[in-house]
Amino acid sequence: MGAKGILKELEKEVAAINQALVDNLQSHVPLISEVGRHILLSGGKRIRPLLFLLAARMCGCNSPDLPAFSTIFEYLHAATLLHDDVVDAAAVRRGRSTANTIWGNQAVILVGDFLLSKALSLAVTTDRLRVLKVLAQTTTLMAEGEILQLLHTNNLQLTEEGYLEVINRKTAILMSAACQIGAILGDVPPQQEEALTQFGLNLGITFQVVDDILDFTGDAREMGKPIGNDLKEGRITLPVIHALAQATPQDRARLQEMAHNLKPEMVQELRDLLQKYGSLDRARALAREYTLKAQANLEDLPPGPEKDYFRAFTEELLDRTY
Amino acid sequence: MGAKGILKELEKEVAAINQALVDNLQSHVPLISEVGRHILLSGGKRIRPLLFLLAARMCGCNSPDLPAFSTIFEYLHAATLLHDDVVDAAAVRRGRSTANTIWGNQAVILVGDFLLSKALSLAVTTDRLRVLKVLAQTTTLMAEGEILQLLHTNNLQLTEEGYLEVINRKTAILMSAACQIGAILGDVPPQQEEALTQFGLNLGITFQVVDDILDFTGDAREMGKPIGNDLKEGRITLPVIHALAQATPQDRARLQEMAHNLKPEMVQELRDLLQKYGSLDRARALAREYTLKAQANLEDLPPGPEKDYFRAFTEELLDRTY
Repeated sequence: MGAKGILKELEKEVAAINQALVDNLQSHVPLISEVGRHILLSGGKRIRPLLFLLAARMCGCNSPDLPAFSTIFEYLHAATLLHDDVVDAAAVRRGRSTANTIWGNQAVILVGDFLLSKALSLAVTTDRLRVLKVLAQTTTLMAEGEILQLLHTNNLQLTEEGYLEVINRKTAILMSAACQIGAILGDVPPQQEEALTQFGLNLGITFQVVDDILDFTGDAREMGKPIGNDLKEGRITLPVIHALAQATPQDRARLQEMAHNLKPEMVQELRDLLQKYGSLDRARALAREYTLKAQANLEDLPPGPEKDYFRAFTEELLDRTY
Repeated sequence: MGAKGILKELEKEVAAINQALVDNLQSHVPLISEVGRHILLSGGKRIRPLLFLLAARMCGCNSPDLPAFSTIFEYLHAATLLHDDVVDAAAVRRGRSTANTIWGNQAVILVGDFLLSKALSLAVTTDRLRVLKVLAQTTTLMAEGEILQLLHTNNLQLTEEGYLEVINRKTAILMSAACQIGAILGDVPPQQEEALTQFGLNLGITFQVVDDILDFTGDAREMGKPIGNDLKEGRITLPVIHALAQATPQDRARLQEMAHNLKPEMVQELRDLLQKYGSLDRARALAREYTLKAQANLEDLPPGPEKDYFRAFTEELLDRTY
């Protein structure tokens, strides 16, 4: 997703989202706005608010509050990022120091709680109980997903099925909720809501699988984090799962060694191993599969500029380099 | 609040609450139920669910779901306890090891997130948007309160006003929400809802002031935590605020020394200093003042067994020894 891509075309929407993100972050406790701005204004593609915005417009909702409502999804996302960084003891995100290294774990946990509550307060202003219902289910599943991921730390027995369960919950479900809630605000018939819900889910899985591929193939500077970071922190993702299953005993032993203790000088060897067993290609094939599913979901939706943007999204998320 | 007090009289209600707490804690991730049971079933007086239950019944709501709904307030409370214990790096609560020492900070942060989401999912089942509205405001204020408390750590300049702001948010607001949401479910006129809201708020302030007194005067075994624990962890509470303001320069210096580094052998001297300046009496007087306010709020509410229980609550919370 580059400057020439869909984000460029949706510049006006992104600007409105960014404005709403700042406007809604007021708190009479300055530290909250400070930490909030750090996590919210340090890049980020605004994919979740954009998905919501486009879904709502596609479903005929043109409320002037759409940018404000769209921040629900970015605040929820930011809340998980803050708690994640504490859980992972992460030091760098998007090329900048994480909030926990600047303000300490304590403040960051609590600002995460604040952002989650703020998201719910905003959701109440939609005046729809179903919006709250979807969000409460979403955050419950997300918390379960994060816990599953934690339990799978350094679990070299993790299967592709277990991996998909984790990314479904930790990533896809929120993108799905963004699309579904857009549909709810548009009062569309159930099958259109369902198509958008599934679209968000399939797009979200693509997004995360690509993220996990880029962890090995990306450019550290462009990504804003070191290569092989997931593996270093014990997150076993699809390429490694595939390689472990295919590898010779010797290569498997070497991969296991790396999984526990990845050093910068091992990164090239790791990439070569993943290449040797076709593991990156296998992951790309899966990402493409889910992109096709998402595009099939679009078939059931009405034509128009939003649908075109959605289709462009599916392609750019698959092809992105960071 | 002893075995002969109001909890004994409300035994049936407490049993129903406890059952609902376990029933609603199911998750297909066993660790969640495990950590959840640890924090939820390790004592606790169920004051928040009881306040809700009594308020709802007083307002004419007799839904069979009241025990299930009442768990909203205990789950929210447990979520803050879990995050608090991580924030404070606490090792002991209610005489038992804290969850973070057993399962680690990471799991505990995420199970806290889960319990918060679970509470909101349950709130959605009340089918009232206003319930969600009150809860979202409550959790936002609570998060701000926790952050304020964190910012005031070791702040010997904290005023009584600043202290009241913190305890209002971190404790009283949730008890207030429990009462208010009971009233909402009973569809009572605004002034009755307001009386219950204020009752919960004033009772909550009493509760926290007494808690903060007991931190100095209580029995360590009965309390399940060491004496002077708040001060040791840098939480400056009313008795210390009062003593610092009244003390001679010499005594103030000694108090400041203790505030940064309280050792068990200093506890008696600390108690003597608080006694010398009448600081515990001053705190007790404030607690009594809020009890009287809470009792005045009851005047505006209809007579009946719930009102009698509420009055008994105000007295027992003031007189409790743990």
